[in-house]
Amino acid sequence: MIRLDAADANFAVAFDALVDDRRETSVDVARDVSTIIRAVRDEGDAALHAFTQKLDRHDLNETGWRVDAADCAAAFDGLEPELRAALELAAARIRAYHERQRPTDTDFTDAAGVRLGARWRAVDAAGIYVPGGRAAYPSTLLMNAIPARVAGVERLVVVTPTPEGEINPLVLAAAHLVDADEVWRVGGAQAIAALAYGTDRIARVDVVTGPGNAWVAEAKRQVYGVVGIDMVAGPSEIVVVADGQNDPEWIAADLLSQAEHDVTTQSILLTDDAYFATRVEEAVERQLADLPTAATARVAWEDNGAVVVVPTLADAIPLVDRLAPEHIEFACDDPRALFDRLRHAGSAFLGRHTPEAIGDYVAGPNHVLPTGRRARFASGLGVTDFMKRTSFLQLDETALNELGPATVALANAEGLPAHAKSVALRIRANR
Amino acid sequence: MIRLDAADANFAVAFDALVDDRRETSVDVARDVSTIIRAVRDEGDAALHAFTQKLDRHDLNETGWRVDAADCAAAFDGLEPELRAALELAAARIRAYHERQRPTDTDFTDAAGVRLGARWRAVDAAGIYVPGGRAAYPSTLLMNAIPARVAGVERLVVVTPTPEGEINPLVLAAAHLVDADEVWRVGGAQAIAALAYGTDRIARVDVVTGPGNAWVAEAKRQVYGVVGIDMVAGPSEIVVVADGQNDPEWIAADLLSQAEHDVTTQSILLTDDAYFATRVEEAVERQLADLPTAATARVAWEDNGAVVVVPTLADAIPLVDRLAPEHIEFACDDPRALFDRLRHAGSAFLGRHTPEAIGDYVAGPNHVLPTGRRARFASGLGVTDFMKRTSFLQLDETALNELGPATVALANAEGLPAHAKSVALRIRANR
Repeated sequence: MIRLDAADANFAVAFDALVDDRRETSVDVARDVSTIIRAVRDEGDAALHAFTQKLDRHDLNETGWRVDAADCAAAFDGLEPELRAALELAAARIRAYHERQRPTDTDFTDAAGVRLGARWRAVDAAGIYVPGGRAAYPSTLLMNAIPARVAGVERLVVVTPTPEGEINPLVLAAAHLVDADEVWRVGGAQAIAALAYGTDRIARVDVVTGPGNAWVAEAKRQVYGVVGIDMVAGPSEIVVVADGQNDPEWIAADLLSQAEHDVTTQSILLTDDAYFATRVEEAVERQLADLPTAATARVAWEDNGAVVVVPTLADAIPLVDRLAPEHIEFACDDPRALFDRLRHAGSAFLGRHTPEAIGDYVAGPNHVLPTGRRARFASGLGVTDFMKRTSFLQLDETALNELGPATVALANAEGLPAHAKSVALRIRANR
Repeated sequence: MIRLDAADANFAVAFDALVDDRRETSVDVARDVSTIIRAVRDEGDAALHAFTQKLDRHDLNETGWRVDAADCAAAFDGLEPELRAALELAAARIRAYHERQRPTDTDFTDAAGVRLGARWRAVDAAGIYVPGGRAAYPSTLLMNAIPARVAGVERLVVVTPTPEGEINPLVLAAAHLVDADEVWRVGGAQAIAALAYGTDRIARVDVVTGPGNAWVAEAKRQVYGVVGIDMVAGPSEIVVVADGQNDPEWIAADLLSQAEHDVTTQSILLTDDAYFATRVEEAVERQLADLPTAATARVAWEDNGAVVVVPTLADAIPLVDRLAPEHIEFACDDPRALFDRLRHAGSAFLGRHTPEAIGDYVAGPNHVLPTGRRARFASGLGVTDFMKRTSFLQLDETALNELGPATVALANAEGLPAHAKSVALRIRANR
């Protein structure tokens, strides 16, 4: 953890270093991944079987390639009632939020008599990757699948590795809740390749989303363009802007809720109160002492954490914009005034009673968000990631006569005579 | 050119081959490009200078790194009046169309008392690549820059190679028309690297768009995630669905307007009239005889062209959906009835008086469209490609008490105790 003070002489340099530290993995898996993808393209299911045997240590022909819908339903029914109700509440609220993202078609006729507009349609099929092991989060399955369903995607395919054949019942329950059409026991780069190119068993999809390890992320990058993908994900981060009127324990817990995800995550506190900053640091240490995930959270906090003291909370805004964080909390009296001035963040949490974790589960907005400064240009996952827009034009003879000559002039200037001719032939004066 | 008839026994196989032929270049430039990008990251302007000397054969210190705004204005003023008016008409109509794409913010309070929504902001800076030489189209600069301007992008940077120092005055005129903030005489993968990572002279941008050769396309793919990019572009295509009542010359010109772009482009006619199909084929040959771009168009037509006879135009729709073409023309009496049933296309041109070329220049919709079957999942370039969405949440104590317990249950089930704690601490019952 580093502590900075905006009043210090070396602050600009130290803050630049914080901004530039992208914490991206340096593991170069590109070649391994391209070998796996080529094998799946060439050999299909045989390659899936072999990679699963080798990497997940089970035989798909024995454990089964697919999980039955009945098994998903049974997993859902087997949840303890409180957890089942929590998942249902989350699903309903995520659905309600995303329904407002459905885009509107346009269709209008302008002054030149041209009818034009754009129309949105869902993709035919989406594939959702769900990691196995520790990071197998049912909430992530909901956050990926529900926007696809709201978009109107007809075929929803879930792939998830089941190391040693072990499957996570929470993931199956979530698959049941979103009514997944297919659940396949495959993971890694091989699963991404199967979704993108198809095999005899697994028909190809149009969009692939969902988090994964470095191999999965690289595989998604390599199939980008063959299918659509969500953002290239990097290490997660939170920035908390807090005044001295907060309970230090609350803010410490917020910082640690990010840190417990992974050792590469980053938690940053910006405050106008140096004494409060120290109290939060102490609370972090206190909470780490008995946090079950302290092994991870402590490394993340010590390696990547930062506490920055600024003269006023307003001074924090340009700093936050440079960080373009995945999550920004404003724990202060008038959070909206600060939020209104902010340009770059994935998701914002306003006020003292809005801890980031509430957005991870039940609040409604998506928790798949741009990381590693990508909120400068990218958005969280949404309904339109599973849709595409077709623009359209309709001219009658009069409208073509009006717009045609300019088109002919530009086409000729660009050295495209067939373009010019296709218009000129239809202009009344030329016939 | 191949001719297929849906009534033939081998039609399904032949049509599958047509769909699977993605006409992508097989040139593997990935390693060269990654070397160039690394050099620009490490050496900045010195690398830009050296690559420009080697690849574009001029010395940036002599020709100048940047084109002055005054030179762009002079190029615009020097256009012949008809062409200047055509560019102005195009810009005005493109702007009017894209203004309707500006997304709406949401901000609402739901039944649980949660205030939530999403807010859109422009990226700070966008870089537009404009190819040099033959494919230096001013229309493409307008189609990339105007959506960025409509989005509200404050810094608009144009990069364009100037081989031997030669610059295209039409490109400068278009740069003037969109009021580009900077125009740099650099191209190739080195220009993309400069936009993504920045150099001493060229500050980095947030989004890079615009067409280019295989090196440029691969460079954009490699910097994807560091910056936002538009789609990975491939060879262009048009599908024309036409009944026998059309003038074969008009339809032939439409097919050739695609074919003249590049030898890899594809033009496909689907018609319910075999005699008409033959007359179009004859008209294509007639027009090729005196088309100035015949050297390109003939190769594209002979290698990739197709004429498909179907029983009825309605039978064409599932075939078009499989092709998911960049451009689809419906040259028939009730084009909208067919368009309503279509799922996958980049842009649609409805009726006998709507040649595709009208959409390339002045109609308004964007001509940067998904190619190579990517309309299955991708959209044309638009305003939101230069914007990003920040979701937000604001809970008061009552709302947190309502949603908190479900969050705590899910966080604990996922093994994330600090998430649970950050909520539990704030729930009234626990204090």
